[in-house]
Amino acid sequence: MTSNKVASGTRTQGILVVISGPSGVGKGTVCSALRKSAPELIYSVSATTRMPRTGEMEGVNYFFKSKEEFKQLIENEEMLEWAEYVGNYYGTPRKFVEDTLATGKDVILEIEVQGALKVKQKFPEGVFIFLMPPSLSELQNRLVTRGTDSAELIASRLSVARDEIALLEHYNYAVVNDQVENACSKIMAIITAEHCRRERLFPNISEWIDEVK
Amino acid sequence: MTSNKVASGTRTQGILVVISGPSGVGKGTVCSALRKSAPELIYSVSATTRMPRTGEMEGVNYFFKSKEEFKQLIENEEMLEWAEYVGNYYGTPRKFVEDTLATGKDVILEIEVQGALKVKQKFPEGVFIFLMPPSLSELQNRLVTRGTDSAELIASRLSVARDEIALLEHYNYAVVNDQVENACSKIMAIITAEHCRRERLFPNISEWIDEVK
Repeated sequence: MTSNKVASGTRTQGILVVISGPSGVGKGTVCSALRKSAPELIYSVSATTRMPRTGEMEGVNYFFKSKEEFKQLIENEEMLEWAEYVGNYYGTPRKFVEDTLATGKDVILEIEVQGALKVKQKFPEGVFIFLMPPSLSELQNRLVTRGTDSAELIASRLSVARDEIALLEHYNYAVVNDQVENACSKIMAIITAEHCRRERLFPNISEWIDEVK
Repeated sequence: MTSNKVASGTRTQGILVVISGPSGVGKGTVCSALRKSAPELIYSVSATTRMPRTGEMEGVNYFFKSKEEFKQLIENEEMLEWAEYVGNYYGTPRKFVEDTLATGKDVILEIEVQGALKVKQKFPEGVFIFLMPPSLSELQNRLVTRGTDSAELIASRLSVARDEIALLEHYNYAVVNDQVENACSKIMAIITAEHCRRERLFPNISEWIDEVK
């Protein structure tokens, strides 16, 4: 048992951190703030077929794809998960995530609720964080203020949000996004804590004990 | 569903945080530093029959008891846990811990490994953190440097430490105490993260969903 032995055990495998929640809860804002405060985290860029919003950049916010391009990626099994949501496809390139975790770096995945549940099937050891709105009326306010969606789409998103909150039970953590800074610091605490989980640090205790004795 | 509803769910019940680990790993030093940096945490004072070390104060570091007094407390079921360790009794007054948790405050319990496992039987929902030495030789150095124990007692403590590390599997978290500040910030992250655990924040999701719908 050496210092290196214990120390090396702390970061051998990266953690997949899935940040999800209903549309309008502030996933994008929280993840942007997180990227600034924790530059060591690798941020997975999703692919989508929806139109870019003002200020969004290809390869930074999303890989913007046509529906035809997206379907080809699915067929080639190049998507870790994908989902149709309010008429558009969203998905996560598989290889990037797997390669990054193998190098010991943590990957942040910002995805819709349905996508997160699919990732959970493939990565049950991931950390699944559900961003909660302080209230549904606050969620409605945010969707209206964002100004990118029609009244009809907002009503649809709110209805979907209710159904999505019902899926909270599949998540490990719930973070209420009352203030972006609060949500960010909670997520960073969750990542630090998960790296301290005994089963991650010492997955083979009996082996390790044999070395100690 | 109101803002208060979600917010009030975040701190309704305090968390019992058990900080344990082999003798000499630095439990006392880490917990002293933690008390300074997080004064909102309530720190359980253990009872013990061992002699006070230089600088230790009654009611601050420990409640120092004679063996006769201690046995009477056990008989009256006033101890949450107790254990005999290297010839002395250590234990935790029950009522203080339970009352504090009920008020929504977190309680830090600094106890020996055997005591922690007994607490786990009574509080499986507690958070059990095992402080690890960077190495066994480093643990030996610390016991020698502390200068309070004989060579024989140090050898005995090291032997016990090996057996205690074998009990790591019963703990939720392992924190390597390489630097006191590192260990402290990890413990604080663990406490923050545990308050975000979905099953603590929303233990009755179906009830809560009924209110949302």
